[in-house]
Amino acid sequence: MASPSHAPDHGGDTVETRSPEIRKDPVTNRWVIFSPARAKRPTDFKSKSPQNPTPKPSSCPFCIGREHECAPEIFRVPDDPNWKIRVIENLYPALSRNLETESKQRETGTGRTVVGFGFHDVVIESPLHSIHLSDIDPVGIGNVLIAYRKRIEQITQHDSINYIQVFKNHGASAGASMSHSHSQIMALPVVPPTVSSRLDGTKDYFDETGKCCLCETKSKDFVIDESSHFVSVAPFASTFPFEVWIIPKDHSSHFHHLDDVKAVDLGGLLKLMLQKVAKQLNDPPYNYMIHTSPLKVTESQLPYTHWFLQIVPQLSGVGGFEIGSGCYINPVFPEDVANVLREVSLA
Amino acid sequence: MASPSHAPDHGGDTVETRSPEIRKDPVTNRWVIFSPARAKRPTDFKSKSPQNPTPKPSSCPFCIGREHECAPEIFRVPDDPNWKIRVIENLYPALSRNLETESKQRETGTGRTVVGFGFHDVVIESPLHSIHLSDIDPVGIGNVLIAYRKRIEQITQHDSINYIQVFKNHGASAGASMSHSHSQIMALPVVPPTVSSRLDGTKDYFDETGKCCLCETKSKDFVIDESSHFVSVAPFASTFPFEVWIIPKDHSSHFHHLDDVKAVDLGGLLKLMLQKVAKQLNDPPYNYMIHTSPLKVTESQLPYTHWFLQIVPQLSGVGGFEIGSGCYINPVFPEDVANVLREVSLA
Repeated sequence: MASPSHAPDHGGDTVETRSPEIRKDPVTNRWVIFSPARAKRPTDFKSKSPQNPTPKPSSCPFCIGREHECAPEIFRVPDDPNWKIRVIENLYPALSRNLETESKQRETGTGRTVVGFGFHDVVIESPLHSIHLSDIDPVGIGNVLIAYRKRIEQITQHDSINYIQVFKNHGASAGASMSHSHSQIMALPVVPPTVSSRLDGTKDYFDETGKCCLCETKSKDFVIDESSHFVSVAPFASTFPFEVWIIPKDHSSHFHHLDDVKAVDLGGLLKLMLQKVAKQLNDPPYNYMIHTSPLKVTESQLPYTHWFLQIVPQLSGVGGFEIGSGCYINPVFPEDVANVLREVSLA
Repeated sequence: MASPSHAPDHGGDTVETRSPEIRKDPVTNRWVIFSPARAKRPTDFKSKSPQNPTPKPSSCPFCIGREHECAPEIFRVPDDPNWKIRVIENLYPALSRNLETESKQRETGTGRTVVGFGFHDVVIESPLHSIHLSDIDPVGIGNVLIAYRKRIEQITQHDSINYIQVFKNHGASAGASMSHSHSQIMALPVVPPTVSSRLDGTKDYFDETGKCCLCETKSKDFVIDESSHFVSVAPFASTFPFEVWIIPKDHSSHFHHLDDVKAVDLGGLLKLMLQKVAKQLNDPPYNYMIHTSPLKVTESQLPYTHWFLQIVPQLSGVGGFEIGSGCYINPVFPEDVANVLREVSLA
């Protein structure tokens, strides 16, 4: 959220009925400022930069038939020329898969350095350029999730890897440099900050209540929709406007323990939420991230580690306040987001 | 930093001489991935969106003569119609100054809620629309810093305020909705996450070494320039490309203890760094943030709390990897940034 001193699009029809609130969610362990006075009505939020235009398929190395222009393939599904999904190396990986044997860590100056070993892979979700993830049927989206799982299972063989981040950037302003539908898998030798912070927060909640706060979320937060095995909610202290979480109903620490049946069930609910967000917000750029547990989670951590998928439509940028403080300003209360998204008709 | 699977502007002249590294700085307490294989040469970085065009002054309520269009004034410098600096309330404040007497905190669902009491003020840095901060002379920039200090001293009278974040958004994509040069002051009832994290990191360093790591930074990190009382560095684990910190040479926990002489000295070094960043990077949008200590810092915390000013040119967006993990990918090593910025000629 930018921090305008004068909100530029502020019409006369604002809703100023609620005072600002500062909320802390035990899952993110982060303070968020809810500031409805800076907002339009919840139903007025629309993306100003709908998804980037699709370039000519002739220029896209992710399209079927142009496999030779990509970095090496890891696997494809099915394993024949008529593939539906390909998992490949990233041509410009942020981490290097060739450094595993080097010394792992050293002190340098005032800080610490770890060798940049890791994996950075790309999951091409469709052979065709014109198909976006939300166009694919639940079984097909389930197969993409199963491809994530298979690649994660392969990477867990490397003892140096401590965390695996699955994420999707859709649209240029959400960080996607390729418009062909794809997601990415980054495997890291360190446990990243949001994960440490989440473990601290959910442990505190567990110590206080004896319960997993993600198990609680599905009853206490603001439910949008549900499937047989998953529930989608607007989380209590949403960092971003119209943020949605999809949470397994049964307690589960690791995304990669998802079975095939649940993968297809999640595929259906993910499709529904992406469609609703696109319909309500004018096809915004978005990110989704799978928040799983570190690979080497201990027995005592299992009761309070519960994976989920976070969808973030990109409706606003970040300014100096957020960079400086790590606090975010959200102009829409999640209870309003849940009401709006529950009612979106896809007919 | 976006996470492109194919770096779009990748020419044939890349520098791939270094392996990626993952660095953790005790000050930010955050892991950063340095990934030079994804970069252009350090000297090739340029902003793609130089500062937003200056609209006609007739539409700008921050211009001299249009004071009546603004939210209430707090003070002006000097206190006459020919002001140089005005401190005013934000017309659309993220927090409310009218909620102090309400109950402070309550448990709600799985999370916690604090009443949104706080201050959100704007510092208009010049009476004229066409003047940017870096155009002002060191004494004039020093007066802006002294205006921050005066407003902070006023706000500290409110016992409910725990942290005060001073920040500047320059350019639309850095979050500025007004092009007239201004900065903002947000006073919060909570200690924000980056501050807690910084205190944890600098405490650990102090416990291990008996030293303040910001005092150490000025000798061990990558020095760009210095003035009588301040040093500018490219920090060891810079989160963002071409990030610069300006650090007081003498140990000091709170920005608002800055005296007038040091304010002018800092004004000169801040002007120099803003000019060098603008020259080198094609006048990019930027943010700066003053990282000070919580107001109620304890005696035992003083030895390891040391304020500094962080300048962040906005050269790239953030994608799903950063939102998900809280890890950032920086394509430029700070040692290269220091070399480049040291040599920028403003002649």
